[in-house]
Amino acid sequence: MYRLEEPTRPGEVRPGGRTARVRSAVLTAVVDELLDHGYASFAMDRVSARAGVGRTTLYRRWGSPSALVRDLLQSIAEQTMPIPDTGSVEEDLRIITQALLEAHLDQRLQATIQGIIAAAGCAPEIDEALRTFFQSRATEAAVVITRAVERGELPPGTDGVDIFRMLAAPLCFRLLVSREPVDQAVADRTAAVILHAARTGLFTTPDAQ
Amino acid sequence: MYRLEEPTRPGEVRPGGRTARVRSAVLTAVVDELLDHGYASFAMDRVSARAGVGRTTLYRRWGSPSALVRDLLQSIAEQTMPIPDTGSVEEDLRIITQALLEAHLDQRLQATIQGIIAAAGCAPEIDEALRTFFQSRATEAAVVITRAVERGELPPGTDGVDIFRMLAAPLCFRLLVSREPVDQAVADRTAAVILHAARTGLFTTPDAQ
Repeated sequence: MYRLEEPTRPGEVRPGGRTARVRSAVLTAVVDELLDHGYASFAMDRVSARAGVGRTTLYRRWGSPSALVRDLLQSIAEQTMPIPDTGSVEEDLRIITQALLEAHLDQRLQATIQGIIAAAGCAPEIDEALRTFFQSRATEAAVVITRAVERGELPPGTDGVDIFRMLAAPLCFRLLVSREPVDQAVADRTAAVILHAARTGLFTTPDAQ
Repeated sequence: MYRLEEPTRPGEVRPGGRTARVRSAVLTAVVDELLDHGYASFAMDRVSARAGVGRTTLYRRWGSPSALVRDLLQSIAEQTMPIPDTGSVEEDLRIITQALLEAHLDQRLQATIQGIIAAAGCAPEIDEALRTFFQSRATEAAVVITRAVERGELPPGTDGVDIFRMLAAPLCFRLLVSREPVDQAVADRTAAVILHAARTGLFTTPDAQ
């Protein structure tokens, strides 16, 4: 999940053709620009040069640095996230936690996310896009919890969205705040703590799905 | 905990006298500079002007934007954090979680922490200072867990530092990543989930204190 889109190779045919190729090249350039200069010094002209896409196209299609960053977030959201259905909530959570761990170990992706988070501090519409991005991911993943409730593995009213917040939080905390490494042991303990609490009913809310 | 130091009022006598007053004025100016311009556009000259402290003093005592930001982090670390000793781990954790919640509800403090986190992405020595800051806070707070183990409330080998990582993580995650509000319900659920897992032994590690 959360993979960064690779630029299309010459000769490779992609659904969407030229439009999709331009978007891919531009979003790769947006990542490079965020990593090299940050949002505070973001320059549309450098994105145009990096991507090999004319300024006119860039301005007509995106219009602003904020729109570029929001489209980057959208492209990350379009990447496949595993929504497992193994019949066991423990195994489903293990698979999702593993995907979260791999996303956190991807340095370019993490640096990009940090760049987007910094940008959200400057631009309210990016702040809003980040909120929407997280909410839609968590809502998708919450189906795993809904199924577990239907199977009787978790108590009725278990709040799947909050479970995914708490699954993701310790990994994010280490990368963003305490600046400590993330590894399998962190992911495993987090999943175990959350699952145990969920089984006990600590994640039930009156208005959960 | 984590309160930002207030500038000294005229006529107020502080331990340390002029040196402490200069530091207080400078660190307030560093916060303003971080909030207005961010670390990428940080200007020592503006800090000098904001603080009413000469450039010579500023350069002699701190020398660089990175040293100023690290001293700001140090001043936050010097503020009192409650290390309760009520005789009940549940009550101790409630008090600490409450202090964490209040720190997360302090908008100026949170914006400052976000500015420091963004700065850590530019300067390895700030990244290192942030790691040390978090580690020393968590190690101080972990004494609450050590006492709970001694009283037989938690299993031997319970990892107090990891408990504080996981207590802080969901609040930080909402503020920094998912951009959702934090409130009492979030703090209460987090404390309940962590305490339950700790009692079950999910936080024991062979090499914990």
